[in-house]
Amino acid sequence: MPKISLKGKNLPTSPIRKLSKYATDAKAKGIDVIHLNIGQPDIDTPAKALQAIQSFDKNVLAYGPSEGSLAYRQKMCSYFAKHNIEVQPDDILVTTGASEAIIMTLDCITNEGDELIIPEPFYANYDTFAAACGVKVVPVSSTIDSNFSLPPIDVIEGKINAKTRAIFICNPNNPTGHVYSKKELNDLATLVKKHDLFLIVDEVYREFIYDGAVHHSVLTISGLEEHAILVDSMSKRYSMCGARIGCLVSKNKEVMDAGLKFAQSRLSPPTLGLHASEAAMDEPLSYLNEVTKTYLERRNTLVGLLQQIPGITVSVPLGAFYCLVQLPIDDTDVFAKWLLTSFNHNGKTVMVAPASGFYGDRSLGKSLIRIAFVLNIERLKESVIILEKALVAYPHTLTLKAHS
Amino acid sequence: MPKISLKGKNLPTSPIRKLSKYATDAKAKGIDVIHLNIGQPDIDTPAKALQAIQSFDKNVLAYGPSEGSLAYRQKMCSYFAKHNIEVQPDDILVTTGASEAIIMTLDCITNEGDELIIPEPFYANYDTFAAACGVKVVPVSSTIDSNFSLPPIDVIEGKINAKTRAIFICNPNNPTGHVYSKKELNDLATLVKKHDLFLIVDEVYREFIYDGAVHHSVLTISGLEEHAILVDSMSKRYSMCGARIGCLVSKNKEVMDAGLKFAQSRLSPPTLGLHASEAAMDEPLSYLNEVTKTYLERRNTLVGLLQQIPGITVSVPLGAFYCLVQLPIDDTDVFAKWLLTSFNHNGKTVMVAPASGFYGDRSLGKSLIRIAFVLNIERLKESVIILEKALVAYPHTLTLKAHS
Repeated sequence: MPKISLKGKNLPTSPIRKLSKYATDAKAKGIDVIHLNIGQPDIDTPAKALQAIQSFDKNVLAYGPSEGSLAYRQKMCSYFAKHNIEVQPDDILVTTGASEAIIMTLDCITNEGDELIIPEPFYANYDTFAAACGVKVVPVSSTIDSNFSLPPIDVIEGKINAKTRAIFICNPNNPTGHVYSKKELNDLATLVKKHDLFLIVDEVYREFIYDGAVHHSVLTISGLEEHAILVDSMSKRYSMCGARIGCLVSKNKEVMDAGLKFAQSRLSPPTLGLHASEAAMDEPLSYLNEVTKTYLERRNTLVGLLQQIPGITVSVPLGAFYCLVQLPIDDTDVFAKWLLTSFNHNGKTVMVAPASGFYGDRSLGKSLIRIAFVLNIERLKESVIILEKALVAYPHTLTLKAHS
Repeated sequence: MPKISLKGKNLPTSPIRKLSKYATDAKAKGIDVIHLNIGQPDIDTPAKALQAIQSFDKNVLAYGPSEGSLAYRQKMCSYFAKHNIEVQPDDILVTTGASEAIIMTLDCITNEGDELIIPEPFYANYDTFAAACGVKVVPVSSTIDSNFSLPPIDVIEGKINAKTRAIFICNPNNPTGHVYSKKELNDLATLVKKHDLFLIVDEVYREFIYDGAVHHSVLTISGLEEHAILVDSMSKRYSMCGARIGCLVSKNKEVMDAGLKFAQSRLSPPTLGLHASEAAMDEPLSYLNEVTKTYLERRNTLVGLLQQIPGITVSVPLGAFYCLVQLPIDDTDVFAKWLLTSFNHNGKTVMVAPASGFYGDRSLGKSLIRIAFVLNIERLKESVIILEKALVAYPHTLTLKAHS
């Protein structure tokens, strides 16, 4: 039998989706599984986007331009301008979600064996994208005790070597909810300029900021034009994850030229998703304000209730819609599976993302889970009750057995 | 300034799209540019697919399952069964076009520096996908004199070494129109089994077969289950390129397990495109019969007219909707650009794909162009007249200058 690739063999399974088959089995048994594992918002997609889909009147569902239509990129420029980000249509490549923007970025800037420094915990799929591109992820640890703020800059500098191509952060952060301060960003900017690296920033949660925190885009840092690569997406902003529309934004011409070649090879971003995304941007600003308010209320409810459970530590997210929760559990991979296979409370259970998969060093994060607050407040309240009951019912010997 | 990647720098630009900016400039000057360069059919997308888009009634445009919905994969199984291809839903991963299916395949089966044998000329983007995955393309030449049939099997075997992971063909072939015979496929099957390689077959033009030729899918070859990987797409079949829905099909469990991990990392195929694709499959078979008849008429018209032009050699395609045309021109890259920048016939010109980009060895194919017959017969007739006038008007010294 022919051999598959090493990366295909060794690739970790997504912590967000790896328990899916157990969830399916639980549902088949009639159990109501509440999905806290995945950032699939329940918020309505903007009416203008849905209307645009319903009034699609072309006879041929054709390819669009590989880089995305000029009209769409112009609209993106106007959107960015409202966030003090000054870009031109040529600085934007429309991609199939932020996922493709990240893969394309790595294709553009890394050679096999190069290294990428990422503060951990980080969005688990960064690991897969890096593996697909033959790039090694070098994590630097941030901790729940300091609310996952940036590790000391000299610790990061200590990880830089001749193989390092970029520092890669997510701001606001998934899974931690950390919003990078102006100082943290400036420190990173100084560092990448000093060592001639790229600074890649995934800003797909830009709008979802709480408690008066301020989001600073990497593209607002002056003097960083050749170094900064921004990853963006419509998925979370407009609750249209299925559109699969994101973009890669950079003022670095070499990056954009290389990116266009990769973009041309895969022909075009999804035409219908782009059509809907363009219309979504006509939605009044009140839509986004309302959505942010909804997430804030959910965060407050969820975090407030979790904090009342003995033995649990919760990091209070200032951005995005995830929180990391430290449980009195040795191995949340075992616990999360047990929730789906062996537990229910009044016919209901929760699916959570074990946090080890968000760490480069898998031994960290074994007692943490990630919860996405993309469900309504009633469902979130129910979830916390289920989690509390589960923690009481959980036979901790299970974890020990898994380790023996 | 930070350095970009070697592959990003060295990547060839798609021969199909690289002249786009000259076409845009020509159009800005009021010239009617007839696109013979790209396989974007003008055929109407099935009415059922368009209706499905217009009646999309979800409030949230959400992610779907990473592997594609079970309902869709079951429908694909029924479709394949009609072509004597027996597969189960678990043998199918839905992808963002055939492009992603190929990238995923290479991610699953190759390590950096591995080799992939592909008969040339081949679909130019295979080169880019291979480069992105760090894989070397090893071409074996097929020629217009033998109507681009498979090169002798011992020539192919001579290219196999310890680095070879797969043989990769497109059947029916883009750009040659070659339909692989049962014997050619059996020879390849014997070869990949002997050397424990994969046989990847891109079959996106499966339906478009002419003159009584018969298409044999790689998945109908018994005993090849562990070796065969099929790449498929809805783009050409249902004239819905913009849906960006394809799939990777294999009975090899290791490949499918690895593929699922890559699929999960990019979350899901485009939801709207999948929704439309599922509906397209409800279209009666008469739709595809009609489309195939249309392409046959176009092929006959185009090839018949081209054969009357002195100095031109045309390969008669038995499948797909492209033909390779050998022109009395030294360098069709220069000629194709000249057509857009310096020529028009009654305010019209043609955009063609220079064929050098379809060769691993770029020195071959310099006198060939690829024409896609995806336009109506009147436009094709006009195109041939324009091409004929252009060949007369073309200052052949241009090519010489470009070479000096």
